[in-house]
Amino acid sequence: MNQVEQFNDYRTKMNERILESDNLIIKRIFNLDTNAYADGEGILNVKVKELIGLTCSLVLRCDDCVKYHLGKSHEAGLSSKEVHEAMGIATLIGGTIVIPHLRRAYDYWDELTGK
Amino acid sequence: MNQVEQFNDYRTKMNERILESDNLIIKRIFNLDTNAYADGEGILNVKVKELIGLTCSLVLRCDDCVKYHLGKSHEAGLSSKEVHEAMGIATLIGGTIVIPHLRRAYDYWDELTGK
Amino acid sequence: MNQVEQFNDYRTKMNERILESDNLIIKRIFNLDTNAYADGEGILNVKVKELIGLTCSLVLRCDDCVKYHLGKSHEAGLSSKEVHEAMGIATLIGGTIVIPHLRRAYDYWDELTGK
Amino acid sequence: MNQVEQFNDYRTKMNERILESDNLIIKRIFNLDTNAYADGEGILNVKVKELIGLTCSLVLRCDDCVKYHLGKSHEAGLSSKEVHEAMGIATLIGGTIVIPHLRRAYDYWDELTGK
Amino acid sequence: MNQVEQFNDYRTKMNERILESDNLIIKRIFNLDTNAYADGEGILNVKVKELIGLTCSLVLRCDDCVKYHLGKSHEAGLSSKEVHEAMGIATLIGGTIVIPHLRRAYDYWDELTGK
Amino acid sequence: MNQVEQFNDYRTKMNERILESDNLIIKRIFNLDTNAYADGEGILNVKVKELIGLTCSLVLRCDDCVKYHLGKSHEAGLSSKEVHEAMGIATLIGGTIVIPHLRRAYDYWDELTGK
Repeated sequence: MNQVEQFNDYRTKMNERILESDNLIIKRIFNLDTNAYADGEGILNVKVKELIGLTCSLVLRCDDCVKYHLGKSHEAGLSSKEVHEAMGIATLIGGTIVIPHLRRAYDYWDELTGK
Repeated sequence: MNQVEQFNDYRTKMNERILESDNLIIKRIFNLDTNAYADGEGILNVKVKELIGLTCSLVLRCDDCVKYHLGKSHEAGLSSKEVHEAMGIATLIGGTIVIPHLRRAYDYWDELTGK
Repeated sequence: MNQVEQFNDYRTKMNERILESDNLIIKRIFNLDTNAYADGEGILNVKVKELIGLTCSLVLRCDDCVKYHLGKSHEAGLSSKEVHEAMGIATLIGGTIVIPHLRRAYDYWDELTGK
Repeated sequence: MNQVEQFNDYRTKMNERILESDNLIIKRIFNLDTNAYADGEGILNVKVKELIGLTCSLVLRCDDCVKYHLGKSHEAGLSSKEVHEAMGIATLIGGTIVIPHLRRAYDYWDELTGK
Repeated sequence: MNQVEQFNDYRTKMNERILESDNLIIKRIFNLDTNAYADGEGILNVKVKELIGLTCSLVLRCDDCVKYHLGKSHEAGLSSKEVHEAMGIATLIGGTIVIPHLRRAYDYWDELTGK
Repeated sequence: MNQVEQFNDYRTKMNERILESDNLIIKRIFNLDTNAYADGEGILNVKVKELIGLTCSLVLRCDDCVKYHLGKSHEAGLSSKEVHEAMGIATLIGGTIVIPHLRRAYDYWDELTGK
């Protein structure tokens, strides 16, 4: 199983487990999270929202969040050039400490795009 | 070997290795760390101290620290409902960036509680 | 005007301004934030929830969040000894980098308690 | 003097002082920083790059960086609705710990837009 | 009163207040903090330890910690060139998000060195 | 394959992949990163620069960055005592949240030094 499937499988399994625990705060955060990036929600288009999600995840150095937004960026039709540039800006903002996460992000994006 | 054993084994092995290196600062920090959460130390009870340790670890997004305090929370007799709620508040404070760590925390807690 | 009044005034004024802008995501986060710490909401009592809010704010080094939860901790009837101890644990978790925030937290707490 | 002028004056004065010290690494970072957000540089348009700069600054909770990118977002012609929404997403990602910075960001944006 | 005096006065006043509260964890952390950077303690010399304290404070973006270690770096006889270079490396590691803190650090260092 | 080889292999492979994507910002950051720590670049000696890189990586809790600077510290001829002490100071600054990273750092250093 490749890393994209592995990430999605664990994410789906554990999200279900978490929601099953029926904690009201967590349920609302999950709900809000889904709505915020939805197409037609708000005024910003999906591509811009995904670039925001991607770069914020990168400067905060959360590999799984980066993977999630790379998957969504790919679905939204963002090009490799756009994704690489956005990640470059995030690396500038977040510093060289971001580079190991950038490596894994490139790796995941290559798998998503079948490179 | 399950993840609880794996975590505890590596933690024990490396803590011994670190203390063996005889660095005074590190030894004192380790000592202080043990005392701070001990029963009878200070005025806060162990359950409250473990919930503090757990939520601070979660907002700082340190998986191993979360695992450690989940183990201690379990020993201290905290219920799943209490642990889930505390982690919900931590996710609210720390934002959606905390969610991947929340997934792994639920996973580890389920193993601890034999769910 | 003392720092407690100054903090509360600016907080109230800007929260109103933010809610007036009618952004759905922000409104929901504010709403969730109010509910999470409310008495009777969930299973943890208010004192414990405020200690979680306080220590997480301290390790994340957000002075205003610390002030807010100190105010709430005071209202909830937490003693100076309990608050100091919780902040001590947070300083241990977050390191000496937390100390300047600890200074301002003590200062604010002293004003709240009329010391 | 209002806060926009105050921010810009100190920023200009100290940037000159820093560059005068002739440290090669810092000079290159400053240079790179200017180029990265420039119009025509790369494939992303200025509005998108400023929204990235703004939201990353907000989740990393740097007030001055937020102010800088709010100024640039204003120059780039972004509307209040777009800026508020982007900041809402950043608050969702970064959590309630971001809220005090959101207050100051709204305040600064209001001054920029003469509200 | 200049900013160096202002920083030192508040620091001294609040440190005394904190120690007076007699919290064991905090007292030990303060004690450990003093010892760690002391001359003759350990194998690294004071200049190197202060450069470590300074750069770690800068990447963690704590203005007061930066000020404290700039004061100590000055006492230890570090030159402006050494301090600037170390701060340049820290800015590279921590990214452009560090720049506002770098401005205030230069400002403080200039006051310390009477520039 | 041991963890040192594993780290170096993945790092080399992905750095090549990243540079191949020809993003100007990233290329410059990589270039700047190489130069900053080079021998003869600037006024600080390589040992001091590596200790800065190591401790900043540790307080920012980036395992891969820590591994990289441990490798470089070893090449630069730093002793175990110096490296352990620097990491002790970093743990004091960054708090107990750093400890899991300290464990992995000791583990990696032992492999580097053939202990």
